[in-house]
Amino acid sequence: MERTEALVIVDMQKVAFTVARYNSDNVIRRIAALASKFRKQNKKIIFIQHNGEVDGYCYPNTEEWKIVSELPIYPEDIIIEKKANDSFYKTNFEKVLKQHSIEKLYFTGCATDFCVDATVKTALTKDYDITIVSDCHTTADRPSCNAKTLIDFYNWLWADLTQTKYKIKVIPAAEI
Amino acid sequence: MERTEALVIVDMQKVAFTVARYNSDNVIRRIAALASKFRKQNKKIIFIQHNGEVDGYCYPNTEEWKIVSELPIYPEDIIIEKKANDSFYKTNFEKVLKQHSIEKLYFTGCATDFCVDATVKTALTKDYDITIVSDCHTTADRPSCNAKTLIDFYNWLWADLTQTKYKIKVIPAAEI
Repeated sequence: MERTEALVIVDMQKVAFTVARYNSDNVIRRIAALASKFRKQNKKIIFIQHNGEVDGYCYPNTEEWKIVSELPIYPEDIIIEKKANDSFYKTNFEKVLKQHSIEKLYFTGCATDFCVDATVKTALTKDYDITIVSDCHTTADRPSCNAKTLIDFYNWLWADLTQTKYKIKVIPAAEI
Repeated sequence: MERTEALVIVDMQKVAFTVARYNSDNVIRRIAALASKFRKQNKKIIFIQHNGEVDGYCYPNTEEWKIVSELPIYPEDIIIEKKANDSFYKTNFEKVLKQHSIEKLYFTGCATDFCVDATVKTALTKDYDITIVSDCHTTADRPSCNAKTLIDFYNWLWADLTQTKYKIKVIPAAEI
């Protein structure tokens, strides 16, 4: 039997796009298209949603906390609320994945270098089969490095990490 | 009672320095000095040592697998052997930390963007109190980004990660 697959959409909340994110319109459009494709195949969509606790940032139930409107949430979707970068930290993410027998995760979202990377790394050590959609994650320019360079770097890094149970795959949306 | 502290030295093996690593001589010299300081204070030194499994890379007990000679291993030091980037993955690292009641970890080593980062991120989600020694880790130039830029980027990133039990501190060796 094929392992159950899910599309994971990390922190695509309105607040994330109040700053410039590399190629954000195209990233959002591609994630939306991928979500439609997964839904048609009866595969799960998992939204990760950050609950801010400090700094007046992204408090639950504020407007900025909501998922961007281009990515509608359907009743059958799963929402995982988190408070750290790693979506597994003190959340029900792993429990929900087990409940639905999901072992293969397709990662998209924001930010590449914070919550996407932290969650991917933990998923790797939990032996999930990971595919990162190389043109469906984004970040902002950082003090020492611009966003485009970081996105290219992480796509290279993830594909080069030592495998655990599986080797991470990094491919564009068009190949999924 | 003060929490027990340890200096963690990640993958400072000979093979890592057969390629150019940014500022490697100074990084090695500073880690050696820090190890001496920790030993004088009866704090633990933990060497992480990568055991290669594939690609003919870093096989256990080969010359290239050994820790660089500038960082001598003392009988009271701890050695954790690992096979993945994350030093907690299928190792006794966490068990050993608990045995020695170590809760505060000072991170140094190589490579910044692979095993140091992967191990730091897992230590963060396991609620350890982490200090990263900003001038005691190194890496190599990558396809999209040079080593110095990445070292600066990771020092910024780690300090900016959302805290778990503790917030990560990033400070140079001179301040420890």
